[in-house]
Amino acid sequence: MTNFVLDERLESESIAVTTLGLCQLRLRDDMRWPWLILIPQRPSIIEQHDLAPLDQTTLSFETNQVSKALKDLTACTKINIGALGNVVRQLHVHVVARNEGDAGWPGPIWGFGERVPYRGDRLQRFAEQIRGSL
Amino acid sequence: MTNFVLDERLESESIAVTTLGLCQLRLRDDMRWPWLILIPQRPSIIEQHDLAPLDQTTLSFETNQVSKALKDLTACTKINIGALGNVVRQLHVHVVARNEGDAGWPGPIWGFGERVPYRGDRLQRFAEQIRGSL
Repeated sequence: MTNFVLDERLESESIAVTTLGLCQLRLRDDMRWPWLILIPQRPSIIEQHDLAPLDQTTLSFETNQVSKALKDLTACTKINIGALGNVVRQLHVHVVARNEGDAGWPGPIWGFGERVPYRGDRLQRFAEQIRGSL
Repeated sequence: MTNFVLDERLESESIAVTTLGLCQLRLRDDMRWPWLILIPQRPSIIEQHDLAPLDQTTLSFETNQVSKALKDLTACTKINIGALGNVVRQLHVHVVARNEGDAGWPGPIWGFGERVPYRGDRLQRFAEQIRGSL
């Protein structure tokens, strides 16, 4: 039995928002899109279907909870949800608020252009807003 | 109360594989990647979080069932799951088998290049294999 350790590539370009029942919730430091990432705190899981059945249901619940909170908070056009993992294999689910005319619209955000970090305390303030909306 | 009608853009470039408890399962006619699409048969749903709670759980179950079947069938490197809907708003979930070195690897498949239809009866035969593996 190994313990869960967050992949350092997931950790390095995002900040912790909160811990849900199963997942760490993180906010990516990229002001182009409001971009949350859920990471189930289970070791050695790569595919969603490899989670235990109850964890699969909890991941779905938490993903949808975060999706609704982010849509309500941002009044965005569309939520994009994705679990790719082609580069970072540790299971993680992206929940991103998209708006018509945003960077890359209507294409996907993954691999698009260069990350644009938030300035000053805006990242921390946005994380606080998200905590308040959950 | 309106009835569920499949969006014609989802219908036109894919074929029906089967009907699960909640979702239509379709196979996209693009030989670059084994690419399945689940469409919950509920009218007027755009975001996953707008499904009824039981439907959210069923969608998660069926997505993971299809993901496991596709991974077992193709022995792919990684499954990519996505619900974007920036162009076609009717809720649909992509489940795609990815392999190192495939078209666009390790980037996302959405919006990448031009669709390459299967030849002859290969699309129908692949759909038959998928039915057999579920």
